[in-house]
Amino acid sequence: MAKIVECIPNFSEGQNQAVIDGLVATAKSIPGVTLLDYSSDASHNRSVFTLVGDDQSIQEAAFQLVKYASENIDMTKHHGEHPRMGATDVCPFVPIKDITTQECVEISKQVAERINRELGIPIFLYEDSATRPERQNLAKVRKGQFEGMPEKLLEEDWAPDYGDRKIHPTAGVTAVGARMPLVAFNVNLDTDNIDIAHKIAKIIRGSGGGYKYCKAIGVMLEDRHIAQVSMNMVNFEKCSLYRTFETIKFEARRYGVNVIGSEVIGLAPAKALIDVAEYYLQVEDFDYHKQILENHLLG
Amino acid sequence: MAKIVECIPNFSEGQNQAVIDGLVATAKSIPGVTLLDYSSDASHNRSVFTLVGDDQSIQEAAFQLVKYASENIDMTKHHGEHPRMGATDVCPFVPIKDITTQECVEISKQVAERINRELGIPIFLYEDSATRPERQNLAKVRKGQFEGMPEKLLEEDWAPDYGDRKIHPTAGVTAVGARMPLVAFNVNLDTDNIDIAHKIAKIIRGSGGGYKYCKAIGVMLEDRHIAQVSMNMVNFEKCSLYRTFETIKFEARRYGVNVIGSEVIGLAPAKALIDVAEYYLQVEDFDYHKQILENHLLG
Repeated sequence: MAKIVECIPNFSEGQNQAVIDGLVATAKSIPGVTLLDYSSDASHNRSVFTLVGDDQSIQEAAFQLVKYASENIDMTKHHGEHPRMGATDVCPFVPIKDITTQECVEISKQVAERINRELGIPIFLYEDSATRPERQNLAKVRKGQFEGMPEKLLEEDWAPDYGDRKIHPTAGVTAVGARMPLVAFNVNLDTDNIDIAHKIAKIIRGSGGGYKYCKAIGVMLEDRHIAQVSMNMVNFEKCSLYRTFETIKFEARRYGVNVIGSEVIGLAPAKALIDVAEYYLQVEDFDYHKQILENHLLG
Repeated sequence: MAKIVECIPNFSEGQNQAVIDGLVATAKSIPGVTLLDYSSDASHNRSVFTLVGDDQSIQEAAFQLVKYASENIDMTKHHGEHPRMGATDVCPFVPIKDITTQECVEISKQVAERINRELGIPIFLYEDSATRPERQNLAKVRKGQFEGMPEKLLEEDWAPDYGDRKIHPTAGVTAVGARMPLVAFNVNLDTDNIDIAHKIAKIIRGSGGGYKYCKAIGVMLEDRHIAQVSMNMVNFEKCSLYRTFETIKFEARRYGVNVIGSEVIGLAPAKALIDVAEYYLQVEDFDYHKQILENHLLG
C-alpha cells in the first residue's frame, strides 16, 4: 500500500497572479502528487496550497514549491494582514494513509535539511517535529515576523534547526513540520448573542482548560444573525467532533440556547466523521481500516 | 477518475478446497482487480467472493470466475443447505466510485451476454437489472432451485433473459445483476426476549410495511443472552443506518427495552457511515464527494 501524505504549504503571495500560476504549474509538474486545492487571499497577500502524494513525491513537490517561492517572492517588499516570516511561510506534512505522524516528522526533517542546504533558507521545525516545546506553536516561532527575524535568530534560544543565524535576504525563514490533519468544525447556536458563543468557546478550547486538541473562538454569522462556535479540531483521534458537539449542546443549555446545526469547512479525513457515526450508533468493535471498503481501494 | 465496481459472485462449492483455491487463483490472475475477501461455508457448500476493480477489469474477472466454476463444479452432485441454482449461483455488480447503478446494469448485461454466448449458461437478470418486476427478487428467480430449473425455464413467464429455455447440464442457471452496496447492520437490545426482536424486525422491514430498503429479522445472541435486530440495509442512500437505529430505539422503549449497541458486519462504504455522522452533527451543506479527503486520492 502506498504511504499517502498531505502537504499544505503557505506562500506569502496572494496578489501577483503570475507567481500564483507559477506555483500551481510547479505543483502540477511533480509526478505522484495531486494538487487538491489552492486559494489566495489578496488582503492577507497569502496563498494556501493543498497537495497529496506518496511519501517520496510529496517531498520533491514541497522542495520545488519552496524553491519557486524563494526565487519569485521578495519578502522585503511584502505587505499583508496575515503574520508571516518567509516566502514559504510554513510547510506542514500530514499523515493520511498507511503512515504515522512519526514518519511524517522524518519527512519534514529531510525536506527541511534539503531546503537549507540547497536554498540557504534557515528552518524552524514546528508542531510534532519541534526540537523543543516552545517551537511547537507556530505563532511563537513566527513572532517578530520577517522584519524581526534577523534579530530573533541571534537570541540564545532561537538558533534555527537548520542553517545559520541569518535569514535568507529575500525568502526569510520557513517553518517545516508534521502535524495531524486538522478539521474545521463550526457549531451554530439559535442566539444572536455573541457573548454566549465566546463563553462556550473559552471553556471548550484547550487554552481555556477545555479539550487539549480543540481551538475555538466565538464568531457572529452576520447574514444569519446567529452566533457560532468556530473550531479547529487539531487531533480528531484524541478529540472527536462528537465530543465538542455534545459539550457545546449541554453548555448552551444553561443559557436556554440550542444548537441548530454545524458546518465542516473544507476537507476532512473520512475517519473524522466515521468515528462520529461509531459513537452515535454505539457500534461495537468496528475496525475502520478493515471494514471501510474504500480503504482497500487506495494505492 | 477510475470507475470502481465491486463484484460479489457466489459459487456452489464450499467443501472442495482445490476448487476454492482455483477460484482464488483465477480472481488473483486478472490485472486491475483486487480480491478483497472470500469465505466458504461447508454446510452451505457455498463460497462468497468479494472483488473490486475498474469497470472493464471487473467484467473480465467475473467472466473468468464463472467459466472456472462451470468447468469445475457439477451441480448434479451438489448438496448444501443454502438454496442454489447454478455453479455460479449469483453474480451482482455494485457501484462503488464514479459510476452509477445504471452503468452497473449495463456491465451486468454485457457480462451476462458473454457468459451465455461463450459458456452456454442461461442467465436471469435480477435486482436493478431485472427486465420485469418479479425478477428483481433473487429468491423468486431461484425458486425451484437447480433441480426444478429445467421445468421452470419452460414456464411462460420464465424464459431466461439470455439463452434458451434449457439449463447448462452441470452449471445450471446463473443470476446476474446490479444492486446498491449492502450494509449488514445489527442492533443489540438489553433483553433476552427474542419475541421483542422479532416484533421490531417485523415492523421495521420493508416487507412488514416498514422501511422499503431494510431487511430485518430477530435473532438471539446465545453467548450474550441478548436479542438482536439483524438487518441488511440494501440502499443506505434511501434509508440511512441512523433511521433504523433511531426507530428501533423508540420501538424498543414500548417494551421497556433499551438499545445497548450495534454491529456493522464486514465491509461498508464510507458514505454509509458519514451520512450517519452528518445527521447526528446536524451538518449543513456537506458535500461528500468534494469534502472527504480520500475521495481525491482514489484513481
